[in-house]
Order: sequence, then structure tokens, then C-alpha cells
Amino acid sequence: MLIFFYAANSCALASHIALEHTGVDYEARRVDFSKGEQKSAAFLAVNPKGRVPALVTSQGVLTETPAILAYICQTYPNAALAPLHDPFAFAQVQSFNSYLCSTVHVAHAHRYRGYRWADEPEAIAAMVRKVPDSMRECFALIEKDLFVGPWVRGDSYTVCDMYLFTICRWLEGDGVDIREFPVLAAHFGRMLQNKIVQRVLSRQND
Amino acid sequence: MLIFFYAANSCALASHIALEHTGVDYEARRVDFSKGEQKSAAFLAVNPKGRVPALVTSQGVLTETPAILAYICQTYPNAALAPLHDPFAFAQVQSFNSYLCSTVHVAHAHRYRGYRWADEPEAIAAMVRKVPDSMRECFALIEKDLFVGPWVRGDSYTVCDMYLFTICRWLEGDGVDIREFPVLAAHFGRMLQNKIVQRVLSRQND
Repeated sequence: MLIFFYAANSCALASHIALEHTGVDYEARRVDFSKGEQKSAAFLAVNPKGRVPALVTSQGVLTETPAILAYICQTYPNAALAPLHDPFAFAQVQSFNSYLCSTVHVAHAHRYRGYRWADEPEAIAAMVRKVPDSMRECFALIEKDLFVGPWVRGDSYTVCDMYLFTICRWLEGDGVDIREFPVLAAHFGRMLQNKIVQRVLSRQND
Repeated sequence: MLIFFYAANSCALASHIALEHTGVDYEARRVDFSKGEQKSAAFLAVNPKGRVPALVTSQGVLTETPAILAYICQTYPNAALAPLHDPFAFAQVQSFNSYLCSTVHVAHAHRYRGYRWADEPEAIAAMVRKVPDSMRECFALIEKDLFVGPWVRGDSYTVCDMYLFTICRWLEGDGVDIREFPVLAAHFGRMLQNKIVQRVLSRQND
């Protein structure tokens, strides 16, 4: 059986929602970041990066949200979570997820993880101050140029919607009011109504 | 015909090498960052992010290195640049590329693009100072845990090798001696011997 490692309020939520959509049997295991469990020997044996998500499969361990999402889409095609038969459309899904991973998540990460990129407390504080601006810039681009509508990639609900929803949940804490982006605010509202999303959120918050 | 936008010494090199490996006809167009061409109206009409690489296909424009690489692999299967028929193996390729994109490239970017994450010159200078340490940490992980050998993903040469090579070229400027990582140094040396890699480097440096 698949084993899925996640942490509360982390980007692992996107993969968790995708897994739940497939209907596959899996065991979700929480990694408690407040106790530093991501740096425990037991978890580092699963993922030497000390990060979530991590998905343990019969073939080995997968890490990195865009890769886990692509794997779930391809392994459970009946769930129809991405356009699998058109390499361009599939690549557009990868492109959106890659932007969230490498630009938007990174902008957000400067609020909590500035120590990765500077040692001085003043520099880390300066990074924290910039987060609302950099997140706002990302979301303006998504609203204007990347979001097709009614779902991220158009008429079909895909893993991009789950990943965007996951990062939208961070906006308020990042000092950005999602209502500045009416299209994305409406999307966020629709995602909150989704029963599978509600079920995963409720399990993660147990 | 495909049109491929790149800039010298950028991460676009990986996709450029992959395209050249397929044998497909494409036109490579240089975007001159020293003249700010990435922010020109003409280029923003291609890629509103104002970044490279961007690949113009008959179906539309693709951006983000991991997505372009996946598209090239799937669209030109005869080039055998990734394991396409095993979703887990394909996802491992995506995972490696995602790590390069969202962690390693980001660590490097703090040398030139600190203004994305802080406004104060002192904070930006602090980020520049940290780059050798953060890059070294990434490469230690790649050498120890991610690189299978003799190629990144094992016996088969894949797009991961092209992307890793691209980022290895930045190490010296980032203050890291690749010889600290003997396995990766040997891989870098083998990539430099590749005729297709040499051809792309020579064209980019024309």
C-alpha cells in the first residue's frame, strides 16, 4: 500500500487531495515539523531532503510535489486529473505546477525559511517584509496570464487546481487578501466546497 | 517550426541541448538580458513572466524548464531522453528536475536576483554571501543521495543529465569547486565531451 508523508499546512496538501481523488488505498502519515520530525533519522531514511511530501510506492520513494502529482495522474488515469494523451496539454499542467513550486512557493518560503538564503537576522527580517509584495506579484500574473478558467487549465479540473488551492491557503498569513484577485478568490471558494478537499482538510487537522 | 527562446548562460541551456538531441527542426532565438530584452513588449507577448526558456509550438507557448523537458521527451520518443513507459521512472526524472528548478536554481538565483526577495541592499548582499554554502549543501545531497550513476538516473542518459550539467556550469561563479564532488565532477567532464552539448554551447556563444 502507498504510504504518504505530509505535514499540516504544507504543500503536501495538493498531493494528498490528488491521492484522495483517485480512490486508491493509502496510509497518510503526519510528520510533525513542530517536533522537528522531518530531521529525524527515521524520516531522513525515507526522504534525505527532510521535506514533505514523500510518497512511498512499491517501486521506491517519490518526492517533489510536481513529480508526485504527475505520478498520481499517470498511475490512476481513471481519475482524470490531467490531460494524459496530449503531450502539450500535459506539459502545460507541468508548467503551471513548476511555476507554483519554483517561484510562488519559494516567494512564500522567505517568510519562514530565510535562513536557507542568508545568515544575518536583519537580512532574514528583510525577506519577511518582502513576502506580501512578491506573493502579490505572483498572484497578479496567475490571475491575468496563467489561469484559463473556470479551472486553472480550462474546462477540466486537474491537479493544478489542487496545488493552486494549497498555496492560496497561505495568502492570508503572507499578508495578501485573496479578494484582490477576484477570479482566484472565486476558484478558492469553489475548492472549499469540494467534498474531497473538505475530507482531506478535516483529516489533516485531526 | 518550433521557436526556442534562450539567454546565454541561463537554465535554457538544458532544453536547448534536449532539443538538439531530438534532431527536430527549430529556430533558436537569443534574448539579450544585458539589454533587458526579456522585459520588452515583444518578448512579454511570448512569455509574460519575462524569463527564458520559452518554446513556441504549433499548440502555443510552453515555459518552465521541467515542463519543456517533459514535453520534448514525450513528443520525440525516438530520442529516448526519459523512461516514458514507466510512470514511476518518469516521475523520478520529474522529481530530480523539480529539485534542480525549485531548490538548486533558487539557491543560485540569490547571487543575482536577491531583489526578488528583499529590498534592502544589505539584505541582498547577505544573500550573495550565502550562495556558496547553499549551493554546496544542494550538491552534497545530489552527490550522496540523488545521483544514481553513471548517469543521473542510472544506466540511461536522460534530460536530467542535461539539466544537471547546465547548473554545474554555474558552480565556479557561485564560489564552489566542483571537484569537492568527485562523482559530479566526472559527470560534468563526460558531458563536456558530448558532441551535441559542444555544438549547443558553441552556438549559444556565437
